[in-house]
Amino acid sequence: MSKKGIVLLSGGLDSATTAAIAINRGYTLSAMTFMYDQRHKVEVSFAEKLAAFFKVEQHIKVNIPGEIFRSALTPASGISVPKNRDVDAEEIPETYVPARNILFLSYALAFAESMGAEGIFIGANAVDYSGYPDCRPEFFDAFKKMADAGTKAGVEGRGINIYTPLMTLKKHEIIKTGVSLGLDYSLTHSCYDPFEDGSSCGNCDSCILRKRGFSEAGVPDPTRYRVK
Amino acid sequence: MSKKGIVLLSGGLDSATTAAIAINRGYTLSAMTFMYDQRHKVEVSFAEKLAAFFKVEQHIKVNIPGEIFRSALTPASGISVPKNRDVDAEEIPETYVPARNILFLSYALAFAESMGAEGIFIGANAVDYSGYPDCRPEFFDAFKKMADAGTKAGVEGRGINIYTPLMTLKKHEIIKTGVSLGLDYSLTHSCYDPFEDGSSCGNCDSCILRKRGFSEAGVPDPTRYRVK
Repeated sequence: MSKKGIVLLSGGLDSATTAAIAINRGYTLSAMTFMYDQRHKVEVSFAEKLAAFFKVEQHIKVNIPGEIFRSALTPASGISVPKNRDVDAEEIPETYVPARNILFLSYALAFAESMGAEGIFIGANAVDYSGYPDCRPEFFDAFKKMADAGTKAGVEGRGINIYTPLMTLKKHEIIKTGVSLGLDYSLTHSCYDPFEDGSSCGNCDSCILRKRGFSEAGVPDPTRYRVK
Repeated sequence: MSKKGIVLLSGGLDSATTAAIAINRGYTLSAMTFMYDQRHKVEVSFAEKLAAFFKVEQHIKVNIPGEIFRSALTPASGISVPKNRDVDAEEIPETYVPARNILFLSYALAFAESMGAEGIFIGANAVDYSGYPDCRPEFFDAFKKMADAGTKAGVEGRGINIYTPLMTLKKHEIIKTGVSLGLDYSLTHSCYDPFEDGSSCGNCDSCILRKRGFSEAGVPDPTRYRVK
């Protein structure tokens, strides 16, 4: 019998690749997607397409009140999305969302323990998002320790694993991995600040990293950018 | 200027006392209350009364899909609330909700970092709920380490504190503390399995501990129990 896994599926390139890797490792997946009044809520419709593509067992969509997050990604915060930033700079950008991965992983942990999943898959990456504290290996190590101390599964020695298969990959390596696993990247969305018609801005951090990744991978980028 | 704090306010006796202690320590409080299809959702109306009583700055109510929690406290799980159980037994009871405190604290952490709060107050207690892994000091220590590793505030050395002022108190000591701080316990609800009219069952763990606490404190219990 295959192991059950939970994937955090945002609709982006990284989480889609993570799901493809988990399935390739033999997991039967359920997915969780979060709506938090993000500017790029169009990503949720991509998460739905991906959930169908991956034939997940369950797709749980969770509403989080956006007012709890002060970030450039939540419009009510009144902070603009940085454009044409040096994405390789070692700083925490304004697009950091306080405790977002902590909250998303906590949801996944509750669901994983409730349904008997063996592990949680998250597309965190320490190469392209070195500025985000909640994308670093030391954070995931600490989360696992906390989860083992605070859950029944943990104290009984059946602790739920946290898998970050993209952690040390560059974007072009992520894309090549996904292509090799048959992933269709036209089902993914990356832009932090999309136009109303869903097309991508081309110059937020996420667009810059995506474009560079497809270029370096030598794979055609299926994204509609309005500004190039 | 007073420090800002977040209190996790369930509507129960412990969280109400915790809020009274935080205010007594000089904090300006905001409150968070969670709705997760719990059997005892009547507690949320008590949380609203308490939020007004304490004049909190903001009261954030969060909906969590109950389907992610398998527990005797979520009716869809099909598990009954244990009655007349030995509440002093050292076991994890069926009323354990997977990763509940982890999820609630993660919400509070996101909100605390976003609004610049100094600390989070939670009414966890290791005496009466020795069975719950997420009520023990080692869990809170691990949560704090994880939060420091995974937030901007943490990596910048302004980590958010987690306060558990009830940790080592017995229920009657909690009640005496609240009474000394002017708390009106008729604004609180404890029963896990209330009747439709809001009256308490009298023989779930939470009712048993509440009744014993008031009795040992020598304070009249304002609760309406239908079965005694």
